[in-house]
Amino acid sequence: MLSKNEIKLIKSLKYKKQRYLNKMFVVEGKKSIYEFINSKFVLHKLFSIDISEFSVNNVVRLSKSELEKISFLSNPNDHLAIFKIPNEKPVNKNNLLVGLESINDPGNLGTIIRTCEWFGVEDIVCSLDSVDCYNPKVVQSAMGSLSRVNITYLDLENFLNSESLNRFGTFINGESVYENKISTDNGIVVFGNEANGISSNLRSLIDVELTIPRFNNKSYPESLNLSNSLGIILSEFSRKSNEKKN
Amino acid sequence: MLSKNEIKLIKSLKYKKQRYLNKMFVVEGKKSIYEFINSKFVLHKLFSIDISEFSVNNVVRLSKSELEKISFLSNPNDHLAIFKIPNEKPVNKNNLLVGLESINDPGNLGTIIRTCEWFGVEDIVCSLDSVDCYNPKVVQSAMGSLSRVNITYLDLENFLNSESLNRFGTFINGESVYENKISTDNGIVVFGNEANGISSNLRSLIDVELTIPRFNNKSYPESLNLSNSLGIILSEFSRKSNEKKN
Repeated sequence: MLSKNEIKLIKSLKYKKQRYLNKMFVVEGKKSIYEFINSKFVLHKLFSIDISEFSVNNVVRLSKSELEKISFLSNPNDHLAIFKIPNEKPVNKNNLLVGLESINDPGNLGTIIRTCEWFGVEDIVCSLDSVDCYNPKVVQSAMGSLSRVNITYLDLENFLNSESLNRFGTFINGESVYENKISTDNGIVVFGNEANGISSNLRSLIDVELTIPRFNNKSYPESLNLSNSLGIILSEFSRKSNEKKN
Repeated sequence: MLSKNEIKLIKSLKYKKQRYLNKMFVVEGKKSIYEFINSKFVLHKLFSIDISEFSVNNVVRLSKSELEKISFLSNPNDHLAIFKIPNEKPVNKNNLLVGLESINDPGNLGTIIRTCEWFGVEDIVCSLDSVDCYNPKVVQSAMGSLSRVNITYLDLENFLNSESLNRFGTFINGESVYENKISTDNGIVVFGNEANGISSNLRSLIDVELTIPRFNNKSYPESLNLSNSLGIILSEFSRKSNEKKN
């Protein structure tokens, strides 16, 4: 059974302000919930139409129609969990970092988290105006990777200024990422806002400006999708770093 | 002014059946509309709050509120155009092709069209059950590239069976795309459905099974996002083909 207060709480977690007031966020879908349970995240409460699927405390059995009432999805899943938002962990600067400036689209951020984990990136630092990583659409598209990749919101300009890292950025007119010889296992690669790219303030702090060259004879398309660019850049970094080791 | 019939027509173009009955589809946003006007696509009618932006016939001035009535977007743009769906063009098999099996997500297909154009892929062949490329969400996320990339819906199994092409496919357990030595400017790379990958029927027709290796020591995430995988694979094909030329 669902109490009125529980319904109210869950619905409120759609909004960033309420998530941080309550220090809680929602995860839907069995696979993702398993991954969060098996991580350092702390489960607050789990609602499920089949509680035998989970061997944890704080599980409440719900009917399908009750679950539909609290789900954020248009095709509601059979399980919905509330996890606690953890305290921030320090950024590990010995590994390659990804920096995101003013990223807006929650689906983009989710895909980026998943792709970062694939390529061994363990820390993402986001400018303070970037979309919140506990937004339900981010959680959904990150598919469990959010439980293992550390995401920190900070003043990105300050961070770049104060850290002695190799600072890479992606631009329309940089050096080809295929030809750039630097192979690094640490440093930071910065990606800008979906529509505007990296701001001029941040640009002045970048050491190496990289580009994915267009392999056609046209001036179209103007750009690649942000998460696709990130996937290609991380793929190139990984390939080169792996070649150096072998 | 908008007639009732125009409103009815435009709203109906949200649905595939109506698009093909009317042989028309909708493009929103000035940039994309410009790109379609400058392509081989034929404009049927353009609705705009500022008709001075366009030097074409068949332009109708609308108020902002009238445009909001017909837009498919949650943040309606100032311009909406109806273009004619062209007749199918033959597939050019002398260039690298992309094959898509049972792709479902319109946003994915849109991003894929844009990324294909970036890497010089001029033809995409889709299985008949794939999402329609004139779906408004595909048009939106393809950002004009749909006006230049040729998309053909066909029986993919028949196509792979009857054509003498190098047939590549992406799988979880294939050869590393970084280590595979084949560099080709033609052939076809096949990508499977978002959730299920390439079907066993199609798999039996693939010559080379490729994988993007995971660069972490974990068994997570299970997979990369489809359009990200495609971007990385096309990036590797382009890089190798370019190295061979130089």
